[in-house]
Amino acid sequence: MSSSSPVILGIDPGTAITGWGVVTESQGTLQTLGFGVIRTPSTEPLPARLVTIYDELTALLQHHQPDAVAVEELFFSKNARTALSVGHARGVVLLTVAQRQAPLFHYKPSQVKQAVTGYGAAGKRQIQEMVRLLLNLEALPQPDDAADALAVAICHLHSTSHLSV
Amino acid sequence: MSSSSPVILGIDPGTAITGWGVVTESQGTLQTLGFGVIRTPSTEPLPARLVTIYDELTALLQHHQPDAVAVEELFFSKNARTALSVGHARGVVLLTVAQRQAPLFHYKPSQVKQAVTGYGAAGKRQIQEMVRLLLNLEALPQPDDAADALAVAICHLHSTSHLSV
Repeated sequence: MSSSSPVILGIDPGTAITGWGVVTESQGTLQTLGFGVIRTPSTEPLPARLVTIYDELTALLQHHQPDAVAVEELFFSKNARTALSVGHARGVVLLTVAQRQAPLFHYKPSQVKQAVTGYGAAGKRQIQEMVRLLLNLEALPQPDDAADALAVAICHLHSTSHLSV
Repeated sequence: MSSSSPVILGIDPGTAITGWGVVTESQGTLQTLGFGVIRTPSTEPLPARLVTIYDELTALLQHHQPDAVAVEELFFSKNARTALSVGHARGVVLLTVAQRQAPLFHYKPSQVKQAVTGYGAAGKRQIQEMVRLLLNLEALPQPDDAADALAVAICHLHSTSHLSV
C-alpha cells in the first residue's frame, strides 16, 4: 500500500487474549480493514499458547502487510505474576513483528486515550465509542481487546512523533 | 542420542543474559556437552534482542538435538518491571522450544537446589561448586547464568517426577 494510505496493525498483547485491529487512512478518513482477537485456551500448556499467538500473528502480518505495527506500552501492574504473564505474550508479539522487519512503535496508555478521545484519562467505554465513531462502525468494536488494538493503531496514525520500541 | 544417554538442555532465561547448559548421563556419570550464555546488548531495541535469543537458541536446539529441555520456574519478584522483562525473554524461550517440539519441563528454584546440593536453601556459590563437582569440571562454570542452566539440566536428570510446563 502506498505511503499516502498507510496500513497500521494495532496489537494489545495478552496470553489468554491478544487483540488486533488494522486501520488505514485515506484522504483524512479512517477505515478498519479488520479486527479481532487471538484466543488461547487456559487448558493448554503455556508454550503451546505462545505458539498459537506466534502462528496467528504471523498469518495476520502476511495477510495485511502493515506499514507499521503499534503496541500499547504496558501498565506496570503491582502484581508481578500478571506482569510476567503479559510479558510472555508481549515478548512473543515483539519477536514475531521484529522477525518480519515491520516497523514497530509503542505508545503509553495515556497517549492512546489522548489521541483517540482528546482526553488522557478517558474510560474504556469512551474509548470504544470514539473508536466506533472514528471508524464509522455501526456497533461498538468487540471484544474490548480488539477495540484497544484499534485505538492504538489510530493513535499511531494521529501521532506526529513516532517512538520506536 | 539413545534414551540410555539422554541429552538435556537447561535454560536460565533473561533479556540481557540467557544461560544455557547441555548435560548428558551415561552409566551414572554426568557430563556436559557445552554451556554458555546468549548475551544481548542493552543498547539494542527490545524486539531485536528477542530475535537474537530466538536465533541463538534455535541454533543450540539444532546443534544439540536435546531429548528434553529444562527451564527454571520464575521466582515471583516483587518488582513488576523485572517480572515483565524476564517474561519477555521467557516467553520467547518457551515459544522457540515448543516450535521444535522438544519436551519441556520446569522446576522450582528449591527443586533445583535440592537436586544439585541435597539442600533446598543452598546459596549460589554452593550450587556452582556442586555443578563443578558433578560434571567433573576443573573450574567453576562461568558465568552464573550458565551454571544455573547446568544445574536445572542436572535437576531434570535427577528427578523422578517430570512436570511439563
